[in-house]
Amino acid sequence: MSIVGDSYAEQFGCSYVENGGVTSALGFKAAGVHAGFRDDPERLDLALVVADEPCAAAATFTQNVFCAAPVSVSRAHLSEGAPGETCYGAARAVVINSGIANAATGEIGRETAQATSGIVADAVGCTVDEVLVASTGVIGVQLPLEPFEAGVPAALKSASREGGAAAARAIMTTDTHPKECAVTFSGDEIGYPGATFTVGGMAKGSGMIMPNMATMISVVTTDAPVLAPDLAEALKAAVGASFNCVTVDSDTSTNDSCFLFASGAAACGMPAFERGSKAHSAFLDALFQVCVTLARAMATDGEGATRLVTVRVDGAQNREDADLAARTVANSPLVKTAIAGRDANWGRIAAALGRSGAKFNQESVDIDIMGIPVCRAGLTMPFDEDEALRCFEQPEIAIDANLGAGDCSATVWTCDLTHDYISINGDYRS
Amino acid sequence: MSIVGDSYAEQFGCSYVENGGVTSALGFKAAGVHAGFRDDPERLDLALVVADEPCAAAATFTQNVFCAAPVSVSRAHLSEGAPGETCYGAARAVVINSGIANAATGEIGRETAQATSGIVADAVGCTVDEVLVASTGVIGVQLPLEPFEAGVPAALKSASREGGAAAARAIMTTDTHPKECAVTFSGDEIGYPGATFTVGGMAKGSGMIMPNMATMISVVTTDAPVLAPDLAEALKAAVGASFNCVTVDSDTSTNDSCFLFASGAAACGMPAFERGSKAHSAFLDALFQVCVTLARAMATDGEGATRLVTVRVDGAQNREDADLAARTVANSPLVKTAIAGRDANWGRIAAALGRSGAKFNQESVDIDIMGIPVCRAGLTMPFDEDEALRCFEQPEIAIDANLGAGDCSATVWTCDLTHDYISINGDYRS
Repeated sequence: MSIVGDSYAEQFGCSYVENGGVTSALGFKAAGVHAGFRDDPERLDLALVVADEPCAAAATFTQNVFCAAPVSVSRAHLSEGAPGETCYGAARAVVINSGIANAATGEIGRETAQATSGIVADAVGCTVDEVLVASTGVIGVQLPLEPFEAGVPAALKSASREGGAAAARAIMTTDTHPKECAVTFSGDEIGYPGATFTVGGMAKGSGMIMPNMATMISVVTTDAPVLAPDLAEALKAAVGASFNCVTVDSDTSTNDSCFLFASGAAACGMPAFERGSKAHSAFLDALFQVCVTLARAMATDGEGATRLVTVRVDGAQNREDADLAARTVANSPLVKTAIAGRDANWGRIAAALGRSGAKFNQESVDIDIMGIPVCRAGLTMPFDEDEALRCFEQPEIAIDANLGAGDCSATVWTCDLTHDYISINGDYRS
Repeated sequence: MSIVGDSYAEQFGCSYVENGGVTSALGFKAAGVHAGFRDDPERLDLALVVADEPCAAAATFTQNVFCAAPVSVSRAHLSEGAPGETCYGAARAVVINSGIANAATGEIGRETAQATSGIVADAVGCTVDEVLVASTGVIGVQLPLEPFEAGVPAALKSASREGGAAAARAIMTTDTHPKECAVTFSGDEIGYPGATFTVGGMAKGSGMIMPNMATMISVVTTDAPVLAPDLAEALKAAVGASFNCVTVDSDTSTNDSCFLFASGAAACGMPAFERGSKAHSAFLDALFQVCVTLARAMATDGEGATRLVTVRVDGAQNREDADLAARTVANSPLVKTAIAGRDANWGRIAAALGRSGAKFNQESVDIDIMGIPVCRAGLTMPFDEDEALRCFEQPEIAIDANLGAGDCSATVWTCDLTHDYISINGDYRS
């Protein structure tokens, strides 16, 4: 995952924490255990993240109409935000199982998710409302409660500040490696002398929906002192520019959830960050850096992917057009297969831009692939095919398009589309 | 292509013409020749369709901002419609080359397309404005004029009422077989006793954009007497419910064009069909039948496809929601790979419906795959896996979803997503 951090570390003032994750911030413990949702006893399938004290929390959830039972329950527990929007409130713990998504399970599914909260509340010693839940795995199958009954106390017993890595493993489905990161920023120049604040997190997700694996889940924690409403606003902005800018196959899942907890444990008793302050701004940067790093790790781990692809559109009339154009290119199967084929095929990029709905004139469009000008003013540019092929050996492929219609930009991350994607998602069930 | 005709013939009063095509209607000749756009001398690469007299014509074109030069020129020649809308006017001939798309070629490309019209006008003996042009093939390469100089007179010389099949071959790019059809309807009960009217056409297109092959082109002719404005309106409706409802990979091309000519030659001197008359309605049905047949043939011939997939959404609040929901399912790589894998994976269909933007409650959704109820009221239904696997042996796979939110419906055609799609579009250039 080094490629993910390296290219972004320079843009921010934060420092990456080596082997950092969801327990890097003060005030949080985590564990990953095998509870029995999966048959393989070696496979971790239950993650628990617990705060030492009730803390400020916020969450964003999938907008999919087929949202899963744990999404409904967690949203209700963090009920201060408007429905569909980012929610916030106080929370103490989040429990996540992998193997079964508890989606398309109706009223029974919701009862199971609610009962799960009760099991965690009893073990931790908090209210049911202070527990958030998430599930990932097969859709349309009821989630058994029994594995939680033994698994939650076991997880709580083993929970520690070193447990982040196990928790990150326990939430994996078809992910090929765990996704974690953490960054720190100093309080010295932002009114919190002597303090060092940490933002860290874990995520899972490779295709947007696996062979029925309902997908992206992330937990981010911080020991910065941030009030719950500010946390919600920060999370909304960070998710919008990170996880929501990843597209592996244009499908979004029924279970997508991103949780953010702030313990304030590194504030040494000083007051919460004020909105608009330098401290608040430093926190926003750190949160964005963590979310972008995790999001790019998801794209890198896209099903069957061999290349991370960054599509940047500049020169759009407005932000919506920039976003539309970048997403249309990033979702185009023809662009994604061209990258799998190491083919600097700008005609496909142009055609995707042209049908995106963004307003521009074809005579104003410039396109670069890996910094090589392949199209200027809508016309083809001669380029060195050997140089292009060498560029395609890089792990990250950059596509830059300038629409020449304004000054708005957008960046979207995706991956190439390979035979392995078809194999993972399409090979005969047997 | 028999599956294409058979399932629709019953719905209409028209009869399919055996081996029918673009020259089945009276008053049209066609030819396909090798003019030299391609290296292989065996491969036809220039199609010419000529009417015996100037006749009413209409056309619809791609909405892609990166529209190709021949699209700009043909649109100008049929200038009576508003820009972007269906155009209409008088026309005598349409010339189509394959091999080079004349897209992203700037002012030089437009001059070439215009000069091509001149060559055809000189040969046929009509005005330049009466000639329509289309190109399909590689994007970003200038189209040479020389092949037209020898090829157009040769094509005109060999043009005949038997030339439809050669014309249909000459417009193919990665298509695996030509796409033609024609239907007839009797004038007896619609005020034109003794007359038999024919609507026939040809089309090309398999992926929406090939390895740079700019794609869907269709020419439809009729000997029914229809005025140009009525022709435009009929074409717009027919294309909207046929070609625009096909999605192979969600990409739409820079060169898409559909031309419709009406010679009136079968009217025996009787006046043009009046709007709202039985005759006009019979013509609309016949045109729709031809366009749907050609459109379904395109989906069947989707790159790497092994199955035609018909996605029907019922019970939507409005037509837009129905269309959005059906398209989202039809474009989902996860749904399309599941079908390639013969997997009755309704969770992926539900997730696609859920993110489509259509309004409904998950508790109201029913989903059938090949008539097998796999989801009722948003919950999974037990079904016989062996029976499902047997159903997947059919050449056409039906997905039916009822959103339970209203009474609007939409149908979209697509194909499965297989390893061959990746191979065709993504294998290393060498």
